Amino acid sequence: MTGHTVSALARLVGGRVVGEDSRPITGIGDLQNAGPDQIGFVRDANWFAAARSCRAGALITSQELDVATTQILVDDVGAAFARVAQLFHPLPSVTEHLIDPSASVHPAAKLEDPVLVGPVAAIGRATIGQGSMIMHGAVVGDGCVLGKGCVIHPNVTLYPDVRLGDRVTIHAGTVVGSDGFGYAREGRTWIKIPQIGNVVIGDDVEIGSNCTVDRATMGATAIGPRTKIDNLVHLGHNVVIGADCIMAAGSMISGSVTIGDRVTVGGHVLMAGHLKVVSDTRLGGSTGLVRSVEEPGEYMGYPVMDKRQHLRLLQKLPELMELFERVEALERREKRD
Amino acid sequence: MTGHTVSALARLVGGRVVGEDSRPITGIGDLQNAGPDQIGFVRDANWFAAARSCRAGALITSQELDVATTQILVDDVGAAFARVAQLFHPLPSVTEHLIDPSASVHPAAKLEDPVLVGPVAAIGRATIGQGSMIMHGAVVGDGCVLGKGCVIHPNVTLYPDVRLGDRVTIHAGTVVGSDGFGYAREGRTWIKIPQIGNVVIGDDVEIGSNCTVDRATMGATAIGPRTKIDNLVHLGHNVVIGADCIMAAGSMISGSVTIGDRVTVGGHVLMAGHLKVVSDTRLGGSTGLVRSVEEPGEYMGYPVMDKRQHLRLLQKLPELMELFERVEALERREKRD
Amino acid sequence: MTGHTVSALARLVGGRVVGEDSRPITGIGDLQNAGPDQIGFVRDANWFAAARSCRAGALITSQELDVATTQILVDDVGAAFARVAQLFHPLPSVTEHLIDPSASVHPAAKLEDPVLVGPVAAIGRATIGQGSMIMHGAVVGDGCVLGKGCVIHPNVTLYPDVRLGDRVTIHAGTVVGSDGFGYAREGRTWIKIPQIGNVVIGDDVEIGSNCTVDRATMGATAIGPRTKIDNLVHLGHNVVIGADCIMAAGSMISGSVTIGDRVTVGGHVLMAGHLKVVSDTRLGGSTGLVRSVEEPGEYMGYPVMDKRQHLRLLQKLPELMELFERVEALERREKRD
Repeated sequence: MTGHTVSALARLVGGRVVGEDSRPITGIGDLQNAGPDQIGFVRDANWFAAARSCRAGALITSQELDVATTQILVDDVGAAFARVAQLFHPLPSVTEHLIDPSASVHPAAKLEDPVLVGPVAAIGRATIGQGSMIMHGAVVGDGCVLGKGCVIHPNVTLYPDVRLGDRVTIHAGTVVGSDGFGYAREGRTWIKIPQIGNVVIGDDVEIGSNCTVDRATMGATAIGPRTKIDNLVHLGHNVVIGADCIMAAGSMISGSVTIGDRVTVGGHVLMAGHLKVVSDTRLGGSTGLVRSVEEPGEYMGYPVMDKRQHLRLLQKLPELMELFERVEALERREKRD
Repeated sequence: MTGHTVSALARLVGGRVVGEDSRPITGIGDLQNAGPDQIGFVRDANWFAAARSCRAGALITSQELDVATTQILVDDVGAAFARVAQLFHPLPSVTEHLIDPSASVHPAAKLEDPVLVGPVAAIGRATIGQGSMIMHGAVVGDGCVLGKGCVIHPNVTLYPDVRLGDRVTIHAGTVVGSDGFGYAREGRTWIKIPQIGNVVIGDDVEIGSNCTVDRATMGATAIGPRTKIDNLVHLGHNVVIGADCIMAAGSMISGSVTIGDRVTVGGHVLMAGHLKVVSDTRLGGSTGLVRSVEEPGEYMGYPVMDKRQHLRLLQKLPELMELFERVEALERREKRD
Repeated sequence: MTGHTVSALARLVGGRVVGEDSRPITGIGDLQNAGPDQIGFVRDANWFAAARSCRAGALITSQELDVATTQILVDDVGAAFARVAQLFHPLPSVTEHLIDPSASVHPAAKLEDPVLVGPVAAIGRATIGQGSMIMHGAVVGDGCVLGKGCVIHPNVTLYPDVRLGDRVTIHAGTVVGSDGFGYAREGRTWIKIPQIGNVVIGDDVEIGSNCTVDRATMGATAIGPRTKIDNLVHLGHNVVIGADCIMAAGSMISGSVTIGDRVTVGGHVLMAGHLKVVSDTRLGGSTGLVRSVEEPGEYMGYPVMDKRQHLRLLQKLPELMELFERVEALERREKRD
């Protein structure tokens, strides 16, 4: 592993060195295990004690520590951590055109050299941009168009006509473009509404493992650029999500929901169909959304409410039994008087 | 794409034409994008404005609009949409017997000509009915029996002994027949209870992507005919679901739950083990079911209650903090008197 | 199927025979369907009626029944059921070294004879212990180490560097080792934090289908020995779970949560990041955990509270509307006086 001097790392993260500028660093480590060739990260005051006793060669911190260890002082330790970690652990990239002989590639597929197609992957009449990787057992349906530098992990299924921008990463087992859940009632039963739309995903989107993104009934289910989605998330047909959103694991977004930009969604959230959530909204974990959110802000709960109001409610709820008793007591005393 | 006249479409959906009977239509479109060869759908009054400004060649609507566009008047726009969409976008069907050379088919498997077996699919000592499609990477275990016209999407896993009726569709990544979650406590640990039952699925069932349907401990986990299940739904061992049910994404149905016919279940519902839900019940999204439902009706909430009662409660809940204060004020004034 | 005498079965489960010691039994059955060669199980008093009318050759029960059928009396019917079922339905095992020719095995992979590698499975530069089975389409990444007797079901994906103990079972579609959900905010967008840790799973762990277990940011996401996890469960990066835990379907455990030993978690639970749950805690279904649990006990609800307190609250909640009215009435009468 190539090393970098502390001063080179400081330049990368826009930080100031306190200590040994020229010290060589060959990797990152956590405060418990980092050795003298590694750099550690002091995320906040909770880590001060560990930082004091650690053996790391250098520390990145937002506040100067009274230790002998060389330090890089930065405004935002999280962002500095990401930059330094990416330096030592670059994201996967393809340099050589390599199609595994066991892969099944349609003769009319268009693969922009170099791409990597792993064992027993299947590529239909699709277009795969330069530098993309299609891993073991992944399926790319007819009519799909993938931009440059996409990473499609094992056992992913892209149904036909899915469109991915550049540098889209999709983790293992995720399904994109399966039929939206659309049926019409006819008498006492249901008939299927063909789902003839598609899915369009912007540049630099990352989707976790075992998610499901349904194709649109007509038009497109869409995810805006740089949005990040955790594992086991469901996006229904015709959902439209903006740019730079974050959505945590287990959230279920029903059909035709529209979400703006820079929205963060906690885990296990349910959104009912056809709702709208404006840009710059933050929804806490477990939120149950049965009305649209029209003002940016922090929200939580079922029913959804202002986050602080909800937290006060959560704190008070265990006293509800007592409240019943207090009201009963009031009624009893009133009667007696 | 073959065209159909407006009058032919009207016959198909049992509707009445207002305007140009013989106008040729070659496809469907949404109101924003439909061109003069396409037919659009006016689902309800919310779509009147879009209908007035659209360029579609014809409209299907339940209420005559004051526009020059040719219209087909129907009672139920949703059902008409489904029928017309199916006409222009027929569901997939198999006309030619085609076993991809990379598929792995057990010599004793029985494939009723024609079936389609895609690349690197695996079929054990199983029976596959005429017209069925087993797509890329799907696994059909030993002893499975599939009816006619089934569609098994990529990377689906059917464990041994699963039985599907005719025209069953299973979307990508779904697992049917994995072991039920059965352990017996022995001292401070758990020992596995072998799951020796199977899964039986009726005709015309459709299951979404990345669902899990566990096999029974003994006997069968069962899904009745025409029931439709959305993505990321879990059915535990020995769950029995009736006919014509609808179950939305992310619902978790614990072991041995019994659900009647025509039950609709919203998203993100949890049902505790061994409960019963009678036919013609409707459960809203996020319902947490910890008791059986013995009367048909509309229910929601945790604890589950009558839907209207629950909605009133949801509306009132944000005022709970205030209620605490009002009771405190009453107590204070009472003391003072 | 080999038979066993009633007395042999009684010895296996530490029970006492009432009736015909030497009766041969060839399998297990449920009380509705068991025939004279089969043994049935009377789990509790709810099954007494079925036990009286059943045709089974013998019954295992914790309480002697007034029936002519031969009985084995045991303390714990559940554990006896598991032992007898395992006798007649042994868990899968590998006796012959068998690598399917369509599997893709890295030349430097180390496979301890005998192992079974199914069709189109892929094994990187990994180590697979004796007696393990890697089924159809499963992927074992570079650097993975699997112990003896592991069962990896179809279409499972193990990312690089995952470590499994002995006799670990992972059901179909589950993904272990995908990137943790880690991003740092930079301006108005997000940059990826490389996830360079791994996942370490102890002996005798079983994980259900379509789960997701993320690798650690640094260090390891860990599951202790004998812990059992149901379907569609998510474990975020750096989650640490102890030994002998049980976790039901659809639970979402956010990053860096630490769970002790012998913890049971109901279905559809959400745990917020960085929380701690002590050993011997029981969390009911639908629990929403936003604070750590520091005392062993039974808990439920959102906010989490003592189980009995929560059940009382659930019972009372439907009367909340009425409580509002009662307070209003008190206020009205007070005003009038």
